[in-house]
Formats: sequence, C-alpha cells, structure tokens
Amino acid sequence: MNNFKFQNPTKIIFGKGQIASLKDELPQDANILLLYGGGSIKRNGIYDQVISALGDRRVEEFGGIPANPEYAKLMEALAVIKARDITYILAVGGGSVIDGAKFLSAAALYEGDEPWDILTNNISTTKGMPFATVLTLPATGSEMNSGSVITRAETKEKLVMGGPGLFPAFSILDPEVIHSIPQRQLANGITDAFTHVLEQYMTYPMGAYLQDRLSESILQTLIEVAPKVMEDPTDYTAASNFMWSCTMALNGLISKGVPTDWAVHMMGHELTALYGIDHARTLAVIAPSHYTYNFEAKKEKLAQYGERVWNITEGSTEEKARAAIQRTEQFFHELGIDTKLSQYTDDYEGTAEEVAKRFTERGWKGLGEHQSLNPEDARKIVEMAY
Amino acid sequence: MNNFKFQNPTKIIFGKGQIASLKDELPQDANILLLYGGGSIKRNGIYDQVISALGDRRVEEFGGIPANPEYAKLMEALAVIKARDITYILAVGGGSVIDGAKFLSAAALYEGDEPWDILTNNISTTKGMPFATVLTLPATGSEMNSGSVITRAETKEKLVMGGPGLFPAFSILDPEVIHSIPQRQLANGITDAFTHVLEQYMTYPMGAYLQDRLSESILQTLIEVAPKVMEDPTDYTAASNFMWSCTMALNGLISKGVPTDWAVHMMGHELTALYGIDHARTLAVIAPSHYTYNFEAKKEKLAQYGERVWNITEGSTEEKARAAIQRTEQFFHELGIDTKLSQYTDDYEGTAEEVAKRFTERGWKGLGEHQSLNPEDARKIVEMAY
Repeated sequence: MNNFKFQNPTKIIFGKGQIASLKDELPQDANILLLYGGGSIKRNGIYDQVISALGDRRVEEFGGIPANPEYAKLMEALAVIKARDITYILAVGGGSVIDGAKFLSAAALYEGDEPWDILTNNISTTKGMPFATVLTLPATGSEMNSGSVITRAETKEKLVMGGPGLFPAFSILDPEVIHSIPQRQLANGITDAFTHVLEQYMTYPMGAYLQDRLSESILQTLIEVAPKVMEDPTDYTAASNFMWSCTMALNGLISKGVPTDWAVHMMGHELTALYGIDHARTLAVIAPSHYTYNFEAKKEKLAQYGERVWNITEGSTEEKARAAIQRTEQFFHELGIDTKLSQYTDDYEGTAEEVAKRFTERGWKGLGEHQSLNPEDARKIVEMAY
Repeated sequence: MNNFKFQNPTKIIFGKGQIASLKDELPQDANILLLYGGGSIKRNGIYDQVISALGDRRVEEFGGIPANPEYAKLMEALAVIKARDITYILAVGGGSVIDGAKFLSAAALYEGDEPWDILTNNISTTKGMPFATVLTLPATGSEMNSGSVITRAETKEKLVMGGPGLFPAFSILDPEVIHSIPQRQLANGITDAFTHVLEQYMTYPMGAYLQDRLSESILQTLIEVAPKVMEDPTDYTAASNFMWSCTMALNGLISKGVPTDWAVHMMGHELTALYGIDHARTLAVIAPSHYTYNFEAKKEKLAQYGERVWNITEGSTEEKARAAIQRTEQFFHELGIDTKLSQYTDDYEGTAEEVAKRFTERGWKGLGEHQSLNPEDARKIVEMAY
C-alpha cells in the first residue's frame, strides 16, 4: 500500500425529501446565486422544491450552464456574482453545473486579472466562495470531491482544476430525482461511475486489499442495480444504491494508497471533443481496447475483477482476465451503450492518428498507471476501438 | 435504505515515516499538550519521533492516561491545559488516549462548572480545542470519529460523549507502529474492529447493498490479514490493511442508511466493569450468544455474511446462518481469544442476573436494532455465554 493523505469535509444529506433541508443548511443571511443547467429542473419539480426551501433569502438565478461547462458562460455568471454581492453559490444539477460552481467558487475570490489562469497555471484553490449542491443526475461524483473540468470553446481547451478549498460545503442527494432522468442519461451515469472505479482499480496488485474490495463493492452494486434502475427509476432501493455508488466512486476514498490509470478518460475526452459523443459512451468505447492492449500489465487485476465481480471462476489468470473484459463490454451493451467508435460516427477513419497527434500537442508525458503509454500506444488503442 | 447525513472532516495521513509530518501539520505557534498512556511510546521509539517532529514548539507532557480513560486523571490534565495556556492537544496512543483527548478538547472550552455534566447531560460538543492524534494501536477507530467513552471510578460510571466539534483535526496512521504491539493487543484490536463492523451490519436486510458490501469488505480484509499480522507484525502489507480496516470500521461510513445494533458492546461493557476482562474479549464472549439468541431476527444477514464473507455456500438460510456464527467463534479462537465467560473467571455464576439488574438500573430502554431486548433477554444471552 502506498502512503496517502485523505480528507473530505463535504457533508452529505442523503434521502427522500431532503431538498427541503436547504432551509436549515444554508446560512440565513446568504446572498445566493442559484446555478442550474438547461431548465429540466423547472419541469421535474426540483426547482420548486429548492425555491420553497430557500424561503426569503436573497436569490439570483443563473441558468443555462451547458453539458461541458463553458468558460464564456461561466464568466457571465461571475459578473452576476460581482454585481450582486453574491456570498454563496447553490448548484442544482449534475456534474457540469457542479463543476461550473467550483470554477465560480474559485474565480469569485481569485485576485488575478484572468480567472482562466487558475486552469492554465494549475492554481490549487485553498479557499473559495462557499457553495453547496443539490444533485439531480448521479454520475460524476463531483458532489463530493474538489475537482472540476472546464471547457473553453474559444481555444478548444478542456482543463481540470481543483484544490482543498473546492469541496462542496454540503450536497443533497435525493434518490427520487432519478424518476425523471431519461434512459440515455441513466445509462450514461451508470457507465461513468463504473468506469471511474475501473480507472482507480484496474492497474496492478499493490497489496491494498481493503481498497480493492471497496472498489469491487461499488462495481458489484452498480451491476446489481443497473437493470433495476433502467427498468424502473422509481425503484427507490435501486435508485438510492445507484446514487450513493456514484458518489462513493469518486470521492477520493478508493484511490488512496493505490496507483490509478485515467488513460481511458484522457483518450475518451478527445472523442467527445472530436465527435460530441457523450462522455460516458467514449469511456465504454475506449475501456475494452485499453484493457486488451495493456493486457500483460493489467491481467492480474483483470482476473481478480473477473473472479470477484463477475464470478468468473474457471480457467487460467489469462482466461479469466480476457473473460472479464468481454463481460464488461457486454455490461455496457446491456445498458444500451455501444462500444465501438464506428457505431457513433461514419467518419472514424483517421481518429487514431488524430488522438496520437493531440497527445503530443497537449504535452502529455505518458498515460496510464506507469505513465508509459506514448502517442503510438494511444493510436493503436483507439484504432482497436473502431 | 434509510435517510442519512454523513460528514467526516478528519484528515488522515497514512503510511511509513509519516509521524515526521507533525512538523508541517501542527500550527507553528501552538502551545501543545502531549497526551499519552503508560509510557510504551518511550520504549518503542514513537515518543522520540514525535518530539523530533515537534521542533521548537512549546510542549507540555501529560502521560499516564489509563486503558479506560478516567475522569479524575483527565481533570489533572485539564488543570495543566488551563495553567499552561495550552492551545492544541496531541494524543499519542490508542483509543483510550484519543478518547481522553476528546474529553479534554470539549472540557477546555466548556463554560459550565463541572465538565462531567458534558457526559451526564449528553451535551454535544460543536466546538472543542483543536486536537490531533498519532495512532499507536489500531482497534477502536477513535482516530477518525467524534465519539469518546469516559470512565469515572468514583461513581462507577462509563459514559459516552461526542459531537461534530470532536473530530481530530488530523490523525497520523503509520502501520510500522504495529511492530512493537504485544500479541494480546493485536488480537484484541482485530477482534474489536471486526465486532465494530458486525454491530453495524448484523441486523436485517435494509436494501443498502453498497453499505453491506463495504462492511463485508472490511470483514474480509481483517480475516485475510489477521493471521499474517499475528505471525509477523513487520509484514507491512498486512499491517497497513489491518490499520486502515480498523479506521474504516468505525469512521461513520458503514452505518449510514442502515439500522445498527450495539447490544454486544452494551453487555460486553458490563463484563469489563465486573471482571476487568479486556474490552475486545468481552465482545467475543457476547457476540456468538447474542446472534444465536436473536437468530430469527438476524438469520438473513447472518446467512448473507456466511456466504459472502466465509464462503459458506451449502445449505438453507438457517444452516448458513448457524455455520456463520460457528465460523465467527472459530475466528476468535484462531486469534487466541476465548469466547466463554467461564474461561475468564471462575466466579461467573450470577453474572447474567447482575447484567439484567444493571440493564434496569442504567435505564436502558431496550437493546438491539429494534430496541426490543429487555433485561430478561440480556440475562439469557449472558447465561448462554457462560
């Protein structure tokens, strides 16, 4: 087990009817910026629950945060924060809205001229404007971590930021919000959370027995509830386990003391940038190829995963590991998620070369848990995913 | 799954050589009370590591905190805090020293005349004097929670206290401290942590699939590393998994959204009070009888535990459940822990009646996850444990 530090101060308020607890959790004298996305919260009743709980606090609304939170749009929100003396940000939405709130939290107290520098200069935020979240779409885990991904269309950049000051003060997780989520987004959320665990687990044995089992617990739970969530999003037992699994998948706990990979995300991001494919679906496209290409390096963990998570008990280490990759791909298929790039675009020729080129342009030193994958490796992995 | 709130702000600093990080983690201008127990830290080198890391900070030492932290002794420490303008408490020890630090943290800022009122009046501490810990004995989980148990010999009381202000600011967990722990205490630590998980898990199915699996993960890990820790405490992989499992067993995570029991602890405490039996050993005495007595109420979870944790796959639910109780008792035996009261004292006759009497005297409303066990139930359970 590697040495590690772990701290996560976010307060989780979990369960039915908990949106009403905003009333008690938010400071009474806060001047609130209510940040949200495309407006679905006005159709599904969540907006009304939030407004009711806010009572007579001073609230400015800012909607329209897009699926990949865009810098230009967030700068408009920042102008509102400054003009209206906002003291507290309340993000009501999924990972994109929450990631946007984290940027605003940092930018509101940033003393430089250009908040984009926080991203380009890798500035860790130790103190941001306080913010909280009401999660409407389980998937990214952003509700209980301090990381954020921001997109800037103008320069075609998608950069990460974070810091110990960017944990939500609290996050409200009401599994009943799942009722109104479209099937496509439910499948995406399950796939996203599942792949988050794989990125922190599918490396090589490190003697971190507890962390391995915690990761396997989340994978097993997602597998158990996935068909139930897809079949009936009002199944509260399934919905609540789905929601808590998504949060636990990326709140920092399971990565402590172990190597992590994240190459699937790095390559997947480029497919979203090139073709606009949903983030989660790009992960499902890349993951099977990535694990097949890096088979020798990952086969022990693949076999362990196959045995413990998929109950694949027959065969050699290699046979179990191969079967585990196949079973993972089948799981994505059962969610209605295609796992080949050619199923998303006819224009896929040349994608592998383009990803390899961007690899160099972006200055990546090397991908994977050993940081050993080079542009040519990435080219081959993406080509295998055609 | 039940609704829940979860927040745990303690920073964990885990790994080899991490005691040295006290240098950076403690405020430079802190006036520190260094709190410890019987002095073993002076023999095993931990004291020297701590003193070296503290540098030129002002430090007062207070040793001699006993195994069940005693109010009178802690009041002496409180007098030092007041007389010497202490601003920060550093607990170097196991659960008793850490529990003592929590009492001092609360008492130092308590405005009433008599700090014992914090315990008798169930006063939740929202703000205490800052404190941190260097854990020298994995077992209780006190290093990452906000609860404390304090004993007062004068009145024969043993009471609990806590509150959101009583999380350690940080805790240093260096698995190498295990090298010098006596076998008896290693076995106690494993048993204590194992039983902590059982108390939060062995109830009835609640549809909390993730929490169940997280609990099973800790149990499986403790089972896997127990013989290795006992055989060779310098086995770092075993030691690190043991240490992290003990912390995760009682940091609040696995109890969220599920019913909890804690009857084993309630009855076990009385055996310690009556005969001075080590805390962990009283749990091993009571647990098998408790699960056998409450078999009908707990058999579904007992069978699930048998299947998933002990790989008991044959037989009916009842058969698996019975076998799971036997296997648990065998696990304690393999650790060298006796599971019958008569193995600890010849004077056991009448103990069951005495525990039942105390049940009433202490005003317990009812034990167990349904709060349904009455004094007569407790009498029968303890009698089964003779």
